[in-house]
This record gives sequence, structure tokens and C-alpha cells, in this order.
Amino acid sequence: MKSIELDSPFLVPTDGSFRIKKHAHTHAPKKSPGETECNALLRADVEQIAALQRKLYAADTWAVLLVFQAMDAAGKDGTIRAVMSGIDPSGCQVSSFKAPSHVELDHDFLWRTSRALPERGRIGVFNRSYYEEVLVVRVHPEYLKGQNIPTLPKSPAKVWEHRLESIADHEKHLARNGVAVVKFWLNVSKKEQKKRFLDRIDDEEANWKFQEGDVHERRHWNKYMNAYEEALRATSRPWAPWYAIPADDKHFMRHAVARVVRKTIAGLDVNYPALEAEKKKRLASIRRLLQAAR
Amino acid sequence: MKSIELDSPFLVPTDGSFRIKKHAHTHAPKKSPGETECNALLRADVEQIAALQRKLYAADTWAVLLVFQAMDAAGKDGTIRAVMSGIDPSGCQVSSFKAPSHVELDHDFLWRTSRALPERGRIGVFNRSYYEEVLVVRVHPEYLKGQNIPTLPKSPAKVWEHRLESIADHEKHLARNGVAVVKFWLNVSKKEQKKRFLDRIDDEEANWKFQEGDVHERRHWNKYMNAYEEALRATSRPWAPWYAIPADDKHFMRHAVARVVRKTIAGLDVNYPALEAEKKKRLASIRRLLQAAR
Repeated sequence: MKSIELDSPFLVPTDGSFRIKKHAHTHAPKKSPGETECNALLRADVEQIAALQRKLYAADTWAVLLVFQAMDAAGKDGTIRAVMSGIDPSGCQVSSFKAPSHVELDHDFLWRTSRALPERGRIGVFNRSYYEEVLVVRVHPEYLKGQNIPTLPKSPAKVWEHRLESIADHEKHLARNGVAVVKFWLNVSKKEQKKRFLDRIDDEEANWKFQEGDVHERRHWNKYMNAYEEALRATSRPWAPWYAIPADDKHFMRHAVARVVRKTIAGLDVNYPALEAEKKKRLASIRRLLQAAR
Repeated sequence: MKSIELDSPFLVPTDGSFRIKKHAHTHAPKKSPGETECNALLRADVEQIAALQRKLYAADTWAVLLVFQAMDAAGKDGTIRAVMSGIDPSGCQVSSFKAPSHVELDHDFLWRTSRALPERGRIGVFNRSYYEEVLVVRVHPEYLKGQNIPTLPKSPAKVWEHRLESIADHEKHLARNGVAVVKFWLNVSKKEQKKRFLDRIDDEEANWKFQEGDVHERRHWNKYMNAYEEALRATSRPWAPWYAIPADDKHFMRHAVARVVRKTIAGLDVNYPALEAEKKKRLASIRRLLQAAR
């Protein structure tokens, strides 16, 4: 299986050793470039991603799946917009997964996201994903009831162990079949989240989407962090790596995500398909035909 | 029903009077701005479309469906890329419809495109569409056989009359339910198509996608033009207008399409949802709560 992990300070160790305290930060590195430089690097990377995406589409071999998970207000929507605007939307699909519908709940938890997987040659973006099933559902195990699963283990620990195994197996299967799975945890601090909630309340173009419930979720912050740690530890693998991106500085975060996306796709080494000699000859004869015609 | 037709030289008359010879041109208007100016206008419109799309998404009322039809090499892919790159891909979905699959052929001809209709608040783009059923299928009626329809009228004229009526009814239904349907015919001349085919054969980044069959379709040019004329005449309506965009000058074409898209969405007059007094109070109390918390 092709390893797609990068030599990056934000890579979540792919050997099961991940610890938030040891490996993840909410603040940008000290030697990080400033706002202006981050934005310039972002623009340059987006331009390169756009060019790479055209090759990806032409080659029609690899698909790329970018998964974004984060606490509220970490900046998922804005980061996806910043990194993916500028890419030809014909080759890029964003799917947002909110609370599951009744139809979705009547299926296994990988069903709804599987229907939205990117085709070969495309970049698919999941704004939230099947990881919600080991994050929000783990913090609120009462949601499991609505899923009506007849074979749910009695031991809660087993439930999450099984789910994480299902997810890891699913991603291994995808990787075997030409999907480069790259996952981002936008790691925001509780303090910065508070600040952004306050900003959002004051912003007339954003306060309509403010969800009161999001504020109450802050009570469960530590439970969420534990759930993230276990999820990332169990599923960061060389063929489907996680990156824990410091999210307290938006400019740095967007640049860091774009950099990982650009380097990962470049690493797939896709190219415009070369024409076989046979097809080249054929093209030459069509050329003559066309030129002779009106 | 809301009329969304614009006062545009490219509007296909919505009263059933459309004639290609009278109303449509393949060359840009004489007083058209030059390449540099077209590109600047395009960039400005794209920026405005991106801002309008955010409002569209926030309002969550209207959906926008942009349909693109054209002869090969008219520039559908490039125009969609030029006009839609720069828009947040979270609010924009492009669907390309090629030859239907077996599963698709086992459904009525509106089924596969209906599944891809944009949700409220989104811009959906159809690169080809159900119009293929009254264009390529009309030129090649032998394709009808593969559709296995038990109730197909014996008279060919009836087949197309019924299909055009189904399409017009479908679009009326969409318009009644908040979908702004805007359709573009990128109108390229046979001579310019020849030039572009030759360019494509010579372009190493594009010749892999060259389809020999496309050249042979040139034989049926007049049949296609008749099919376009009848389709546009039967389905250009104030709530679902067609625009016949001159396509021989790519820069002008892209600018003209962006202009229609921008003006149409602006005309929907969507805005960020205003908060009710009740919700405003609630937000203020959450604000105090948040500020007091850690």
C-alpha cells in the first residue's frame, strides 16, 4: 500500500503513539511566517493544487479524500473555502455531514459518507464525516439509541473499539483502491473558541447561523479531547494519515492545510496520460481528414 | 412564477419565436470589449458571484441551476472552470452527464439529472443535461432503442414533442419550488470547431481526451442546429430562460456567461437572514454567559 504520509511537524504519528499533550498544539509554531507571508504561501499552493487537480482528472487513477474534523468555530468552513476556492469545481466535491436523517440512521454508519466518496480523478472534501460516530456520539452515547443497532456490544468500550476498527478497515480498503485519504484535525483551544463565538454573535453576516447548543458543548471539552486522541491514534496510518493543525491562528492554519494538500497530491505523481503510438498515428490521420473537410 | 429573464442581447425569446438565423450569433458583437477588458470584467463578476453565493447559502431559499449545452469544443468545460472557480465549492456542485449507464437507462430520462439537482442555497451546474435527450438522441434516434420504453409514440415527431413538453413541465415545477433555472447554449461555428479540434490534437495536455467520434458528428451539423432551435424555442421561458452565447471568442463567451450568472443571482434579491427580536435577546444572554465562563 502506498504511504502518503508527509515529513510534516503536524503529522499524527502513524504507529499508534499519538498523545495530544505530546504531539499537538493549538498555537502556530514560534518561527511561523506572519499573516502576509502565510496568505502569499496559501495563494501559491492553491494555484499549484489547481494545476495538480487537472492532472489528477486527466490521469483518472487516484481520487483524493480530504476529511475535516474539529470543534465548533475551529474554522472548517473557512479553511475549506480558502484552500478549495480556485480549484475547478468540476473536479472537486464538498460534502457536509450534519445530524443524520432517518433514512441515514437506518443504515450502517459508513453508508451515507460512502455515497459521497469522490470518483477517480476528483478531490472530495468531507466537512465532518464518519468520525462523528466516534466523537460526538462517543461524548453523547445516548445518540446510539436512535441508531437501533441489534448487535451493539453491551460494553461501551467495545462499541468504540469496534467503530474505530471499522473506520480503519474502511480507509485501508479505500487506500487499496486508489483513494488517498488525508485527514485534518483543526485543533483550536477552548479559549480561542470562546473568542470566536463572541465574534460570531457580534457579526451580522454570521450570527444567523449561531447554534446555542454549540456553547453548551464546551462543558464536554475534555471528553471531546479524549475522543479525538483515541480516534486519531487508532486511525492515523501511512496510507491514511491525520494531521493535527494548530487552529488558533487562522492564517497559519489555512496555509498549513494547503501545504499538506499540495504536497500530498504532488506525491501521487500523476501525469497527463501519454498517447500510445497507435493512437498518435490515428490522431495524425484524423488531423489530415479534418483539414481537408469544410 | 418569478420571471428571471434578463434584458440581454443573448436572451432566447421566451415567447416561442426563437430562430437561430434571426436571434443567435457565433461571433461576439462588434462593439464587444477586447480580450483584456473581457478578462477584467470576468474577474469582477466572479468576485461578485462568490459574494452572492454566500448570501444565497445563508438565505437557504433559492437554488440556482446552470445548464450548459453546446457542440463539442465550444468551450463548456473551460467556461464552467472560468466562471465557477473562485466560488466556495461548498456551495457549488458541477455534474457532468455523459452517455447514460445501464442503471440510468432503466429509468425515465429525467431521473439521473434529478438526483443531482442543487439543494436550496447552492449553485448546481449541469455540464450537458436532460437536453441531450432532444439533441444527440434526436440526431441519432437509434439510441431510443436502448431505452426500451414500452409506450414510445410510433410517430417520431411525437417523441420529441413529448420530450420537450416533459422538459418544459419539469422546469416549471422546479421554478415553482425555488430553483432558478438558467440555460446556456454556447454557440460555436462549424469553422471555429474545426480550428479547435486541430488545436486539441496538437496540444499534449489535451489530446488524450480527443474523441474521434466527435469529428464524425460534424456530418450532422445541420441536424444538430435544427434540434437546438426546436429545443430552445420550446423551453425558453421567463422562469427558465435560455441564453445563446456567441462562442467563437472564448474571452467574450466567458465574460458574457459570468455576466448573466451574476445578474440573475443578484436579481433573486437574497440576503442574510435577519434575526428576530426573540433570537437577538437570546444571543445577548448567551453572550453574557459565555463571557462569564472559562
